[in-house]
Amino acid sequence: MEAEIIAVGTELLGVQRVDTNSLFITDQLNALGVEVRRKMIVGDHRELLTASIKEALDRVEIVILTGGLGPTEDDLTRDAVSAATGRPLIFSDDLRDAIAARFRSFNRKMAEINLRQAYLVEGAEPLENPNGTAAGQWLEHEGRVVMLLPGPPHEMKPMFLNHCLPRLEKGLPAQVIRTRFYRVAGMGESDLDQLIAPVYTKYENPVTTILAAPSDIQVHLRARCSTAEEAEALLNEVGPPIEALLGDRIYSRNGDPLEVVVGQMLVAKKATLAVAESCTGGQLGQRITSVAGSSNYFVGGFLVYSDSMKEKLLGIDAALLAEHTSVSEAAAKAMAEGARQRTGATYALSITGEAGPESSTGAPVGTVFIGVAGPDGSDARKLTLPGDRARIRTFATQAALDLLRRKLA
Amino acid sequence: MEAEIIAVGTELLGVQRVDTNSLFITDQLNALGVEVRRKMIVGDHRELLTASIKEALDRVEIVILTGGLGPTEDDLTRDAVSAATGRPLIFSDDLRDAIAARFRSFNRKMAEINLRQAYLVEGAEPLENPNGTAAGQWLEHEGRVVMLLPGPPHEMKPMFLNHCLPRLEKGLPAQVIRTRFYRVAGMGESDLDQLIAPVYTKYENPVTTILAAPSDIQVHLRARCSTAEEAEALLNEVGPPIEALLGDRIYSRNGDPLEVVVGQMLVAKKATLAVAESCTGGQLGQRITSVAGSSNYFVGGFLVYSDSMKEKLLGIDAALLAEHTSVSEAAAKAMAEGARQRTGATYALSITGEAGPESSTGAPVGTVFIGVAGPDGSDARKLTLPGDRARIRTFATQAALDLLRRKLA
Repeated sequence: MEAEIIAVGTELLGVQRVDTNSLFITDQLNALGVEVRRKMIVGDHRELLTASIKEALDRVEIVILTGGLGPTEDDLTRDAVSAATGRPLIFSDDLRDAIAARFRSFNRKMAEINLRQAYLVEGAEPLENPNGTAAGQWLEHEGRVVMLLPGPPHEMKPMFLNHCLPRLEKGLPAQVIRTRFYRVAGMGESDLDQLIAPVYTKYENPVTTILAAPSDIQVHLRARCSTAEEAEALLNEVGPPIEALLGDRIYSRNGDPLEVVVGQMLVAKKATLAVAESCTGGQLGQRITSVAGSSNYFVGGFLVYSDSMKEKLLGIDAALLAEHTSVSEAAAKAMAEGARQRTGATYALSITGEAGPESSTGAPVGTVFIGVAGPDGSDARKLTLPGDRARIRTFATQAALDLLRRKLA
Repeated sequence: MEAEIIAVGTELLGVQRVDTNSLFITDQLNALGVEVRRKMIVGDHRELLTASIKEALDRVEIVILTGGLGPTEDDLTRDAVSAATGRPLIFSDDLRDAIAARFRSFNRKMAEINLRQAYLVEGAEPLENPNGTAAGQWLEHEGRVVMLLPGPPHEMKPMFLNHCLPRLEKGLPAQVIRTRFYRVAGMGESDLDQLIAPVYTKYENPVTTILAAPSDIQVHLRARCSTAEEAEALLNEVGPPIEALLGDRIYSRNGDPLEVVVGQMLVAKKATLAVAESCTGGQLGQRITSVAGSSNYFVGGFLVYSDSMKEKLLGIDAALLAEHTSVSEAAAKAMAEGARQRTGATYALSITGEAGPESSTGAPVGTVFIGVAGPDGSDARKLTLPGDRARIRTFATQAALDLLRRKLA
């Protein structure tokens, strides 16, 4: 079964109001095994909205509209569904009485205009709205289902859960969704795709989705079957060969970001961590401490943005910087060692490099060294990173955390 | 002129990734007087995407697609535009060379699969993408314009601004847009709205928009007239009374964020800055150093996440912490003074507090002290901040930067 969602309202096209209803509805539908194929946001235009509804009805079994059920001339959802299905609007005395009662309960007089909200598309069942005046509507039309739901999330959500979900469940074949999820560090999207495509392209079920963010890739497998056993069996067929190909580049199987994974490893080892950051200026510390409870393993660190601070705060030899510059393997190692020694932490991570837009040492922009110091000595790695200042910094912190993850593994 | 925007990608239908590109594009188009009538999010289905493009081309002059330009089998935008317009895909040697050069510059080998990105819809002009491998495309087709833009915002935005906007402006009727812009620190959205609504609600032109992010509010005035003089005259009528009401809470009139404004003030005073961060763990340094050229005034700082690090790295008296705890005015002052003294910077900022979810000192979550030390001594302020860990930390860094701004003013 497939669905389209249409959010109605010119205000949702601008930057001030973002449609979040469709996210909630998508989540609910996916859990039922219903796939959302398209979402639309349509301004308050009668013909465009009518055409959009018709197009959706031509293609999918379930069409869900949110918004446009208010009392004003701009509220066109009822009219558009009527026009798209060829079913007239019928005035409902029951709905009028319910609206009037609601106004009375607030000691307010019902405005004439609110009578617009008492019209039902012919054949539709009204859906009660305890949180507003706009009743919802559930319409079965030529083998399709059309839902008209109010726009405010606090009205839409309970209506969907209490009235739409039970009706949907009755009509659906029993279907179960099971998922598997990997987060991967240390490779680009196209390299990863090339590596695992030979496995996943053999299967339409589970569906494989690859999501790429700077320096972080997520691989989702989603199996849809009539029983949980079948779905798990499919995932057990496709998941392990993908895991084998990705190997230790997989750092999370439950969605945790790298800073959480590294934190858990430090806690398990009863180890502590310090940082020394140059070009990232605090981003590494910020990410590590974004995790609640990070005070259990993160002790602190040093922002050493200039050579003189590297000498002063970390005790790095001026001769070392003169010989190798601050953007060097030697500097990265010395920074990690200095931070470890001056804080007494078990491990220390360092980052030094050229984030751009200009280079101060002559090394090309994007050249970054990450270092790690621990009980077994220190180590550093050179990175050549693409993109602008913000991306270079994000890549660098991700690579530094991944370096520590591999050290702790 | 009217437009539709189509965001392409199954991942955008779920709850984990939200399309924000269309908000940016809508804003840009509105400023040109182009109305966006409908937005769609379409999953990676070849036929549905082709049909969606056809439907949009039937109705509006401008169709903008974002996403689906990657190298994988799932990236269908090129194919769908080709199918919807009946124009074949043509392999471009120039695009292939550009992609290969990009890979070479990172010392990476171009994967075979990346050749998919070298196809142009017949008749389309390629749009350069300095931030990724996916070139954009600008296609004029039967009196319509179709733009194919990459999905990642950091690739899409500069491409739209540098290549699409100038082409669009050429084709549009002369209309002049003039804007005024304020960024405001230190007050909430509803307080601000209540303060300035009596002024701006009197005018339909300019349009006033208030955008709120944690601890940062932007007020936009946008006048649309047939001449620049008329537009400026309108802004000169509405702007000054709003400025008078907001006073020195306005920190920027050109869109610069607070870290840029403070950086410019430091440069003007030939002063330098250091930081000492506890609960923000590096976020303040990260923000300051997100500005290109910040090495001209930012020297570095200390992440002192535990009491013992506050003593060890900043020389704070253990007795002071025992008496006042680390979440206190005395601790914030001592941290700023210690950072200033140990780095030799002209000014130092400090942040210490309870970001939650649990309190370690007994102070309620959301209690934060910010401190500043300078040539005239030190100062601290207590904040009581709402929200979760991430919001408390963001509010705290914004308040600390604003404290320095007022000190430097």
